[in-house]
Amino acid sequence: MSLTLYSYFRSSAAYRVRIALNLKGLPYEVIPVHLVKDGGQQHQAAFQAINPAELVPALGTGQQVLNQSLAIIEYLEELQPTPALLPGNALERAQIRALALDIACDIHPLNNLRVLQYLSGTLQVSDDAKATWYHHWIRQGFDALEQRLSQSPSCGQFCFGDTPTLADCCLVPQLTNARRFNGEVSRWPTLTRIEANAMQLSAFQQAAPEQQIDAE
Amino acid sequence: MSLTLYSYFRSSAAYRVRIALNLKGLPYEVIPVHLVKDGGQQHQAAFQAINPAELVPALGTGQQVLNQSLAIIEYLEELQPTPALLPGNALERAQIRALALDIACDIHPLNNLRVLQYLSGTLQVSDDAKATWYHHWIRQGFDALEQRLSQSPSCGQFCFGDTPTLADCCLVPQLTNARRFNGEVSRWPTLTRIEANAMQLSAFQQAAPEQQIDAE
Repeated sequence: MSLTLYSYFRSSAAYRVRIALNLKGLPYEVIPVHLVKDGGQQHQAAFQAINPAELVPALGTGQQVLNQSLAIIEYLEELQPTPALLPGNALERAQIRALALDIACDIHPLNNLRVLQYLSGTLQVSDDAKATWYHHWIRQGFDALEQRLSQSPSCGQFCFGDTPTLADCCLVPQLTNARRFNGEVSRWPTLTRIEANAMQLSAFQQAAPEQQIDAE
Repeated sequence: MSLTLYSYFRSSAAYRVRIALNLKGLPYEVIPVHLVKDGGQQHQAAFQAINPAELVPALGTGQQVLNQSLAIIEYLEELQPTPALLPGNALERAQIRALALDIACDIHPLNNLRVLQYLSGTLQVSDDAKATWYHHWIRQGFDALEQRLSQSPSCGQFCFGDTPTLADCCLVPQLTNARRFNGEVSRWPTLTRIEANAMQLSAFQQAAPEQQIDAE
């Protein structure tokens, strides 16, 4: 099976999938899609045919192209069950998925490129008000996550237990993103402790934006 | 097992879970959480202890409280595998999950109550500009979904095949929401055709906002 990842170095959703592919030890080819250059290459007809939503990541599997980072990672989990990114029993898997979705549904969609572009462009919001928007949602989301994890008996070296799961695949890219927007991440000691553990692993290191072939 | 759903009749994320519970034939008790009254009951300490993210739905399982609608539905799928909401093989399940996430990540988070409140309150956006925002994201998301489904050989009576899946649990509530904001849903003939099929089923009918004990 030959896997092809349509990726942008700064996309935190693509970063999630890169981490998962690396943790699974699955080789893949990266096809960069520049989200800013040429008015956004994701809007070009060639990419629209790959993903009508005009978003990265997308994963070519040889048979079909999959979209949505979490759906892609669930697919990788079924394709290659070890190391497990959704370990445990049904209740435990639900907790891991919920942590991932706390980021993927409640933080990331509000702060990604197309939304910030809409705020500046269509709504003519000032740079200050846009930064306030950004920090509002990341703070609201990460404050809740910090509380949840710091109180969770299941939280260990990673979000759930002592090995990386789907939740960590989402957490690390979102923290990278928060830093890029000058977020004070020291506010979330549990989250940054987990991130530091993750960044000891080559799977996370090699998935980082600055390690990508399209890094600027 | 006794299941307790923290729900609000208008919450489309809670509506997804109500559909899934009904499709699985799992009995559950509803505890209404009013998202507007009293400044939002989801922000009160009693609910914050249940879900630090201060969002509905949450599902009490007797052992633990789960949050995030899609994580809850995945849990229900493991608890009671039939009727399957994620049928097929790994690639097919990935497609179904991606359709659900197209709605849960790319449409719903931008148009839910807390975001509309931020636009009006903090950003002082006019009602017209807020409506334009709402329709922009629903149109962008549903246009892509319409294209994807109308071209998909797997789309049948429902988003995937001829029985309801996780994708339909997300689609129907989002269409209900679009109508509430005066969206011209006729723009999406495949989506509304699937919705009409779903609304033939009592599982969908009984999950609808107007059928809830807290409906206004």
